[in-house]
Amino acid sequence: MESEIRPGKFITLEGSEGVGKSSNIECVCKALDARGIAYFRTREPGGTEIAEQLRQLLLQPSEETLTAKSELLLMFAARSQHIEQQILPRLEQGEWVVCDRFTDATFAYQGYARGLGLQPIRWLEQFIQEGLNPDLTILLDLDPQIAMQRIADRPKDRMEQEALRFYEAVRNGYLERAGQFDRFHVIDASCAMDDVARAVTECVDRYVSRVEKAIG
Amino acid sequence: MESEIRPGKFITLEGSEGVGKSSNIECVCKALDARGIAYFRTREPGGTEIAEQLRQLLLQPSEETLTAKSELLLMFAARSQHIEQQILPRLEQGEWVVCDRFTDATFAYQGYARGLGLQPIRWLEQFIQEGLNPDLTILLDLDPQIAMQRIADRPKDRMEQEALRFYEAVRNGYLERAGQFDRFHVIDASCAMDDVARAVTECVDRYVSRVEKAIG
Repeated sequence: MESEIRPGKFITLEGSEGVGKSSNIECVCKALDARGIAYFRTREPGGTEIAEQLRQLLLQPSEETLTAKSELLLMFAARSQHIEQQILPRLEQGEWVVCDRFTDATFAYQGYARGLGLQPIRWLEQFIQEGLNPDLTILLDLDPQIAMQRIADRPKDRMEQEALRFYEAVRNGYLERAGQFDRFHVIDASCAMDDVARAVTECVDRYVSRVEKAIG
Repeated sequence: MESEIRPGKFITLEGSEGVGKSSNIECVCKALDARGIAYFRTREPGGTEIAEQLRQLLLQPSEETLTAKSELLLMFAARSQHIEQQILPRLEQGEWVVCDRFTDATFAYQGYARGLGLQPIRWLEQFIQEGLNPDLTILLDLDPQIAMQRIADRPKDRMEQEALRFYEAVRNGYLERAGQFDRFHVIDASCAMDDVARAVTECVDRYVSRVEKAIG
């Protein structure tokens, strides 16, 4: 399942709460529209009926504490459905896929911030993805102090209720991964919203040009 | 987490559909009642609110095909909740736990019958259970042809709709595990129901005597 033999490309948008993922995923889509590329927009956890049910279970506040390990397994169970039912079939047919979060988020949240460590996530990544990875990952990077202020008025789900220290660990985890993989493109999300949007659009545009050039 | 340092004992009842688990788990409980042992009766997948939600998701017929890997992860996610919230706290307080199915079922169904293999289940078993295993496992063994006839009139859930060949693989998987671990006690479930019930009762009774003798 190497990148070269899949005709479609897989773009993910990453970043923790309050960095502006929702508005910037629009920029990714618009940039693809402008280049006439057919794509499927989706999100994680979610993207299929079963995966969305698991998303509910993961994000709803509950009397019963979800164990960190259970949370991790539910993430990858949802991911397995998502890959099998949506992502792979579409990539194989030449459609591009734009996904709001993927496995980098699992590394950042469950691995770095919840302290589960990287080894179990690496094992599950191999077990479920069998080599499938995003082709381009746009990371919106922002100091959690600023991010928390931005979402202060928004209703909080279970994960957003976590403390600032948690988000600092998430940020560091994301940045560490960004330093390890060429597919990452880090964008400073502390700039004015218009500047961030422009940077995202340019990033996608450059990537499309590179792909089209490679195809010839 | 060694068996010796837990005061409570963990008894599981195993076997595939139609072997008479429901009526024989009553025998286990009655045998413990007769010896004045405090126990908690539970089942897998299930046993906590979240785990029961996952059970629903696993057993309900659905438009969307659940991938074999997703099924496996959901089983262990439910198990993590069950162990953390119910099984371990009770065992640690000296209560016994009687569970309708546990990880042996995962090996038999997902590992042997669905063909996922044993390696991923062993990895997940270690990750989630950290050495916690049943102290006594009663396996009700029955030729699937007879079992299928017994449940012919019962409404079928998704797993019960599977073919006979699948159940033969489940049976063989169970028997292979029974050959590997001393904690297994295999009972021939093709006998008259009263005889099976008597064998289950005697098995529990002997086990309790052994435990009491060991305590002194």
